[in-house]
Amino acid sequence: MAKLNESAPRRPGGSAGSVAEEPSAQALDAHDHRKLGSRLGLFALDPAVGKGLPLWLPNGTVIRDELEKLARELEFKAGFQRVATPHLARTELYRRSGHLPYFAPDMYPLLEVVEEKNEDDSASSAELRDEYALRPMNCPHHHRVFAARPRSYRDLPLRLAEYGQVYRWEKSGALSGLARVRGMCMNDGHIYCTAEQVEPEIHAVLDMYAAVYALLGIDGCRFRLSRRDPNDGRDKYVDDDAAWVWSEALLRGVLEKRGVTFDDGVGHAAFYGPKIDIQVRTLGGTEETLSTVQLDFAQPARLGLSFTAPSGKPAVPYCIHRAPLSTHERFVAFLVELYGGAFPTWLAPVQLLVVPVSDAQRGYADAIVQRLRAKLVRAEAAPSGDTVARSVREAAEQKIPNVVVVGKREAASGRVSLRRHGVEQQSSLSVDELERALLRSIERRDRSLGLAE
Amino acid sequence: MAKLNESAPRRPGGSAGSVAEEPSAQALDAHDHRKLGSRLGLFALDPAVGKGLPLWLPNGTVIRDELEKLARELEFKAGFQRVATPHLARTELYRRSGHLPYFAPDMYPLLEVVEEKNEDDSASSAELRDEYALRPMNCPHHHRVFAARPRSYRDLPLRLAEYGQVYRWEKSGALSGLARVRGMCMNDGHIYCTAEQVEPEIHAVLDMYAAVYALLGIDGCRFRLSRRDPNDGRDKYVDDDAAWVWSEALLRGVLEKRGVTFDDGVGHAAFYGPKIDIQVRTLGGTEETLSTVQLDFAQPARLGLSFTAPSGKPAVPYCIHRAPLSTHERFVAFLVELYGGAFPTWLAPVQLLVVPVSDAQRGYADAIVQRLRAKLVRAEAAPSGDTVARSVREAAEQKIPNVVVVGKREAASGRVSLRRHGVEQQSSLSVDELERALLRSIERRDRSLGLAE
Repeated sequence: MAKLNESAPRRPGGSAGSVAEEPSAQALDAHDHRKLGSRLGLFALDPAVGKGLPLWLPNGTVIRDELEKLARELEFKAGFQRVATPHLARTELYRRSGHLPYFAPDMYPLLEVVEEKNEDDSASSAELRDEYALRPMNCPHHHRVFAARPRSYRDLPLRLAEYGQVYRWEKSGALSGLARVRGMCMNDGHIYCTAEQVEPEIHAVLDMYAAVYALLGIDGCRFRLSRRDPNDGRDKYVDDDAAWVWSEALLRGVLEKRGVTFDDGVGHAAFYGPKIDIQVRTLGGTEETLSTVQLDFAQPARLGLSFTAPSGKPAVPYCIHRAPLSTHERFVAFLVELYGGAFPTWLAPVQLLVVPVSDAQRGYADAIVQRLRAKLVRAEAAPSGDTVARSVREAAEQKIPNVVVVGKREAASGRVSLRRHGVEQQSSLSVDELERALLRSIERRDRSLGLAE
Repeated sequence: MAKLNESAPRRPGGSAGSVAEEPSAQALDAHDHRKLGSRLGLFALDPAVGKGLPLWLPNGTVIRDELEKLARELEFKAGFQRVATPHLARTELYRRSGHLPYFAPDMYPLLEVVEEKNEDDSASSAELRDEYALRPMNCPHHHRVFAARPRSYRDLPLRLAEYGQVYRWEKSGALSGLARVRGMCMNDGHIYCTAEQVEPEIHAVLDMYAAVYALLGIDGCRFRLSRRDPNDGRDKYVDDDAAWVWSEALLRGVLEKRGVTFDDGVGHAAFYGPKIDIQVRTLGGTEETLSTVQLDFAQPARLGLSFTAPSGKPAVPYCIHRAPLSTHERFVAFLVELYGGAFPTWLAPVQLLVVPVSDAQRGYADAIVQRLRAKLVRAEAAPSGDTVARSVREAAEQKIPNVVVVGKREAASGRVSLRRHGVEQQSSLSVDELERALLRSIERRDRSLGLAE
């Protein structure tokens, strides 16, 4: 996976997807993911652990887990198979892929190891020295999964996916919250396919992007066809004119067939092929890449990947790199700023707070919480000792999407009084109705509860 | 988390949980997780990546994902909060925890880094040098999560969980399949609590172990109270007699209250406290630790952890370390050998194979597959071109738990003919019945389909 732009896009506005033309300094501040990340207990940066290596606190980890669950479902339905690969590898692998020495300045220092010499080992000590690298990209590991067994054309397209952790040595001055870090977990995926399969596979990837963006309320994206600069030297791009012409025409054809307008990104290609970038405008107004699809005609040959064609002869697959949900770090930073921290129920760290009016309703409140937690709903009761006003205020500050207050009347009738985050009006419903509305909203990943809100 | 014994327990026997007294060489071989791991496409060891660093192939990754889903649900219901922390940290953290220099021979070499000097930076270059370690244990990171915000007695017990990746430099001659590796992902968890909370928390942990073992059909375990050897030097154990006496008496009391027999494990304590180990017998007949609960009265103070007691004064929490599902590597090796590779439906990489008798039923077979995949069932159609006999034989070799054959009669009546793995008799049922049985079995994590089998 080539490097995406690191800065997360930011957008002010109370409702998901709305675009304020000229955000005020206050709006920018209220949406800053670093401030919200601390206030909402999403992540912490800790000098004892190291710069740019965030600790994901419980609330942030819920969001990670929900995004990964979403990706797992979408990928399963799209025919991807998940893999899990280690976060380091012998440096030799990165030399063969071409990442080393080119990418070395962006990597952590290499690990020099010496293997224990066995008594019956005739190798000289020099041969027992080896070198490992914390991986800056997942693709070489996935290529090795492809190579782990003999492949035939009947296995293609082979679609591998992993939320893969990578490490990059960013300059300390450039580090910023979750948006620019030294350790990141990427929603990575690689599709190995024949020339004929490239076009439908890229359409399928873009369909998944569209579905994810619609689900999350991300709009206002622009497409960019990122191609090589033909005037640029051969050092920058793989030297294969025919492949560049074919690949760029193919990506252009995909965009034209989809009827979308797109910008011409001369000079924005990866070294191994052209790509389609999906650009968003940040809170500050600059354009950044949120997602990318890359057509790679060079790496598989470099790493000696092959499959048996129908003719019985070996052939080299194409590889499509994709990451719809970017990295957890960048994507959560983006979503925090998109929603201003007010996550929809399915993503919210606490999905429901139950507030008893007095100690007499504590048992009723706890019973509601237990009933919903048994169905894996993240429900909590307000801490005892807090007043209703304080609990409701605290819930608003924590941007908990659903708060129910239960007094004497509610406890007697098996009902609750529901307040949705940011909505003035309260509504009364039965505990059964509440449970149904929550479970449906979570299952469908709706941004509302489907009630009169 | 202290080091568990590395070798995975192994047990022959066709049905889960059965214990053969003297396994034959053939039975040992048929259950060897290294052979099954390759035959079933679970994992691969690749010299290009590095020794002891398994690549989890798609089928093995399904099992990992299902185990992690199980852990997430059990942990949510038991009041754990998940966190996600980086796989490395500044070595200073491991010096404070006491892992360094003691644990250094078991760690990958340290990473020496130099931070970029800013123009306005007056620090000398010596101050910009730093050192990182690939983590051999997750506990210091979790301790830093505890320390990330002020804690009060009202926050306790605070239960943190993570499937945390750790790296250990095992000697190359000791490496073996998944059972002994250099990179492993641990079902780790740490409970921070007061002295009064230790006992109920340890009971709750042991309850979770019992639930997991019953679910998976693991039996024949023995408990061991692992305590310090009082004759051993003070180098090996934290020097605090009163704490040892109190902790060992507490763990002994827990075991006695549960009415279980247990072995006396003198000299098996961790350096920071005693533990309860759960011992199983391996395929070869030796005893190994599958899970462990450890009472740590030393680390939290060493790392300066504290909470505000009801009196308003700071107090140091106890820490309980636990890992019910061990590491993915060791636990999957164990389960592969326990089941001989024939996983129950909920864990099976392919849950259902649909075999059309002829091309005329291909559409009917595909429709069944699509319908079940939409419900996230891992259903597949047999490859076209294969005979029924070959598909059924292949499914048996791959130990697919459920195979349905659909001919003219089944297609006409909306039915299927089901063969369960290892069961001679076939049964006829409607596609609706099949779907219900599969979904129920998966949801409940049953080892049967709940039909007459």
